[in-house]
Amino acid sequence: MPVKILFIGDIIGKPGRQALSRQLDRLVDRYCVDMVIANGENAAGGFGLTTDTAKELFDLGVGGLTSGNHIWDKKEQVPLVLASQRIIRPANYPEGVAGQGSMILATPGGVKVGVLNLEGRVFMKYLECPFRTADREIERLRQETPIILVDFHAEATSEKASLGWYLDGRVSAVIGTHTHVQTADERILTQGTAYMSDAGMTGSFDSVIGIGKDEAIRKFLTQLPVKFEVPKKDIRLNGVVIDIDEATGKALAIERIAVCC
Amino acid sequence: MPVKILFIGDIIGKPGRQALSRQLDRLVDRYCVDMVIANGENAAGGFGLTTDTAKELFDLGVGGLTSGNHIWDKKEQVPLVLASQRIIRPANYPEGVAGQGSMILATPGGVKVGVLNLEGRVFMKYLECPFRTADREIERLRQETPIILVDFHAEATSEKASLGWYLDGRVSAVIGTHTHVQTADERILTQGTAYMSDAGMTGSFDSVIGIGKDEAIRKFLTQLPVKFEVPKKDIRLNGVVIDIDEATGKALAIERIAVCC
Amino acid sequence: MPVKILFIGDIIGKPGRQALSRQLDRLVDRYCVDMVIANGENAAGGFGLTTDTAKELFDLGVGGLTSGNHIWDKKEQVPLVLASQRIIRPANYPEGVAGQGSMILATPGGVKVGVLNLEGRVFMKYLECPFRTADREIERLRQETPIILVDFHAEATSEKASLGWYLDGRVSAVIGTHTHVQTADERILTQGTAYMSDAGMTGSFDSVIGIGKDEAIRKFLTQLPVKFEVPKKDIRLNGVVIDIDEATGKALAIERIAVCC
Amino acid sequence: MPVKILFIGDIIGKPGRQALSRQLDRLVDRYCVDMVIANGENAAGGFGLTTDTAKELFDLGVGGLTSGNHIWDKKEQVPLVLASQRIIRPANYPEGVAGQGSMILATPGGVKVGVLNLEGRVFMKYLECPFRTADREIERLRQETPIILVDFHAEATSEKASLGWYLDGRVSAVIGTHTHVQTADERILTQGTAYMSDAGMTGSFDSVIGIGKDEAIRKFLTQLPVKFEVPKKDIRLNGVVIDIDEATGKALAIERIAVCC
Ligand SMILES: [Fe+2]
Ligand SMILES: [Fe+2]
Ligand SMILES: [Fe+2]
Ligand SMILES: [Fe+2]
Ligand SMILES: [Fe+2]
Ligand SMILES: [Fe+2]
Ligand SMILES: [Fe+2]
Ligand SMILES: [Fe+2]
Repeated sequence: MPVKILFIGDIIGKPGRQALSRQLDRLVDRYCVDMVIANGENAAGGFGLTTDTAKELFDLGVGGLTSGNHIWDKKEQVPLVLASQRIIRPANYPEGVAGQGSMILATPGGVKVGVLNLEGRVFMKYLECPFRTADREIERLRQETPIILVDFHAEATSEKASLGWYLDGRVSAVIGTHTHVQTADERILTQGTAYMSDAGMTGSFDSVIGIGKDEAIRKFLTQLPVKFEVPKKDIRLNGVVIDIDEATGKALAIERIAVCC
Repeated sequence: MPVKILFIGDIIGKPGRQALSRQLDRLVDRYCVDMVIANGENAAGGFGLTTDTAKELFDLGVGGLTSGNHIWDKKEQVPLVLASQRIIRPANYPEGVAGQGSMILATPGGVKVGVLNLEGRVFMKYLECPFRTADREIERLRQETPIILVDFHAEATSEKASLGWYLDGRVSAVIGTHTHVQTADERILTQGTAYMSDAGMTGSFDSVIGIGKDEAIRKFLTQLPVKFEVPKKDIRLNGVVIDIDEATGKALAIERIAVCC
Repeated sequence: MPVKILFIGDIIGKPGRQALSRQLDRLVDRYCVDMVIANGENAAGGFGLTTDTAKELFDLGVGGLTSGNHIWDKKEQVPLVLASQRIIRPANYPEGVAGQGSMILATPGGVKVGVLNLEGRVFMKYLECPFRTADREIERLRQETPIILVDFHAEATSEKASLGWYLDGRVSAVIGTHTHVQTADERILTQGTAYMSDAGMTGSFDSVIGIGKDEAIRKFLTQLPVKFEVPKKDIRLNGVVIDIDEATGKALAIERIAVCC
Repeated sequence: MPVKILFIGDIIGKPGRQALSRQLDRLVDRYCVDMVIANGENAAGGFGLTTDTAKELFDLGVGGLTSGNHIWDKKEQVPLVLASQRIIRPANYPEGVAGQGSMILATPGGVKVGVLNLEGRVFMKYLECPFRTADREIERLRQETPIILVDFHAEATSEKASLGWYLDGRVSAVIGTHTHVQTADERILTQGTAYMSDAGMTGSFDSVIGIGKDEAIRKFLTQLPVKFEVPKKDIRLNGVVIDIDEATGKALAIERIAVCC
């Protein structure tokens, strides 16, 4: 029996959480999902994550949360949030930084699923090499389970695709996040790893990647700092369902999800 | 009768040109395409454009070529290439730079189509404001035709989406290029402009965005300069077909195209 | 008689203002300074400028204030601050942005001094071309006076030096700011323009470019956001005195200033 | 008896090598220099280093060469050049990259001098953390000698100053390179480490940081790729002399050097 994982792209604020509340149960049923994993770096007001929003997402059926560069935005919440065993931040932050970069979850049927979070460096921060960090973490995770999902939170398509090929055959899936735009390049690479450059976002689509259109345009027109609001209309959920062979950890299928809520 | 435009994402080297030679006629027939426009910045060996490769593309049925940051790569060819009335470079390069940023083409039925090329600034070069350049160019083009397609060659999804909304209702379509990964966010915005963050690429998909996987991975692992080759396997064509109302210039439909060749 | 201008590099918070209160009168006397101009973008708590801190600096003898990328930090103060006729922000911000990019001041002896503020683009924001903005502004200012000082607030040494040579012979001085480190390359270029890549900073030198050493190091070690304090010890004033021929506007001498306070 | 080291900033092409041929002997005599170290990343035609140019510099009296981001420019020469025991590249390139990041040289009097090369990350490449690499390398070098000079090849003043303070008391000197502009901030930090943000450059000063003024200006005006030439006029040598206590490795004095040749 394949293990079916639904991975949900960056959840943006309250509209993003509403999307899950309206559609998650239905999606889990329809796709016979064994485990739901979501990127939560924008779940609290569009910037960062709080223990309250994380609990809300877990209560809605999310099994584990990955994150990215915005996880540090709600500064006083960071230690509490990252103390959770079901929330991870990119593994390639330097030594000494709070939180964990990977976790092992279990499906209701008792199948172990390793989840690894990495952050890209191109156009972003000066972190440890995501390729080498992946080598290390995957070796450790594979001692527990062959089923491993990687959330690669990155900007540049070249870096994402390179990591996909680099890990091909060693993990079940490499799914990108961070650009908030779903890509149409889902496929299974030649050695059996499911790949997709970006899972997209979950929140208001009457927006510029989840935040206010007018503010975003004003920022480009003035080059001045702008305070962003999270719009509420045209709510959609973006993600991807991956079928994984339980014994080998190879991907059997990958299907893009984009539903109006 | 709607005007149907097929826009093809960045053509990468010889495999990209082969993709057109194998599939373009079929696509034109199947979708009743009135005009084919393609991004040609990588058509010559993966970097830049030459008069020979441009002629090859025109002979295959391409009506006009847009470009982007790589158009300057074949330096001695630039003046000749940009002298063509059917090849444009981003309009927001500074005054004095060779070439034109927009062009007006005509379908076999005599319908005028304005094509505007812009380049993003985020993570790229220090060009003129693409939003204000668009204002100026569109005003000029609309005196000739309400049918205007914009190729926004840019990296950041926020900049692309912002320009889409900014031009909504004023042009027929804003289609992104440059990331070489097709996005799944095609839609018609509220005022009638077709939008898609990236048309994707046309060339070898046994690659990292069109160039060699091994070299790309090596570059990330070493941070050293690497010489890239264009791979040949798994050739695909990425693009988008837009149906436009001839009288108003509003988009009637937008459909993603991704075919194996 | 030459006109003597003292230009003071980025004033950082209270220690920076104290530096002026302790040393400015002495410097004005010693160098027979006719006019004091200072960069005030960090004068309020290290980030931005307020009407109160501007008034404090004017009362201490500063004749006019230039600024840079940090002028927008105290958001609610921006409209008030930039309404002053003696405070400018970089001239190459886009049309529609509050404030003015140049000003004409007068020495006690009635000599008019044009001051132009520009911001670099390399590693910074996507502003208008500083070279072309300079052309336009200088043409306007020269109708009033041949004595023109340019504060080029920029990061990259190549961009600074290029602007210096580009304006050589057309302005009295091109003095850089923004890096907060004084450079030792002061000289008079071949056509008579005084040039120096950076005037340095005025504030605590028991610091990393004016802000807390420990926080700065922590930021590099963790790649996490850090809240910065302005240290208080080892206060110094950095700047430059330029002697300018009143009739021609050519620089006669340039002297670096770095004094402990 | 203090050990006296002359460190010379980035040598740019033939004019840079001429500067040494004309002035190095005189400087060594005048300052009683025990060892000459120079940054050679631009010594061959402005871009990279060759075995021939390295030999020329060693014959002129240079004891060891550091480098930086441009050391990879003469690609076919890299393996030969980096095989030398007297040439280093930044130590924080990833594992597997050719060459060594530190070296131990000896003065004619037999005193061992450790030299460590690091490259900054801000606005540059995605390398290993220079702070942590420094920790590791310095621990190793200190087992041989307390006299350690660090060439920190970096762009951002904040990163340079942070590393200076971070290593204060553990090395004899932290001297910056890469901006090609000498800074006026030389000093001995509180725990005994000599510090200066940038040693400057050695080559033609009728230039923009060592390369052609007209080409540099054209690049900023057009945003197009430009081919650079190395100008020949107004040759100067920039560097710094550091006096170091032989027993403790603490800096006793630091003096900026800028001579016309
Ligand atoms: Fe996000
Ligand atoms: Fe993100
Ligand atoms: Fe491209
Ligand atoms: Fe491109
Ligand atoms: Fe500043
Ligand atoms: Fe600044
Ligand atoms: Fe250099
Ligand atoms: Fe360099």
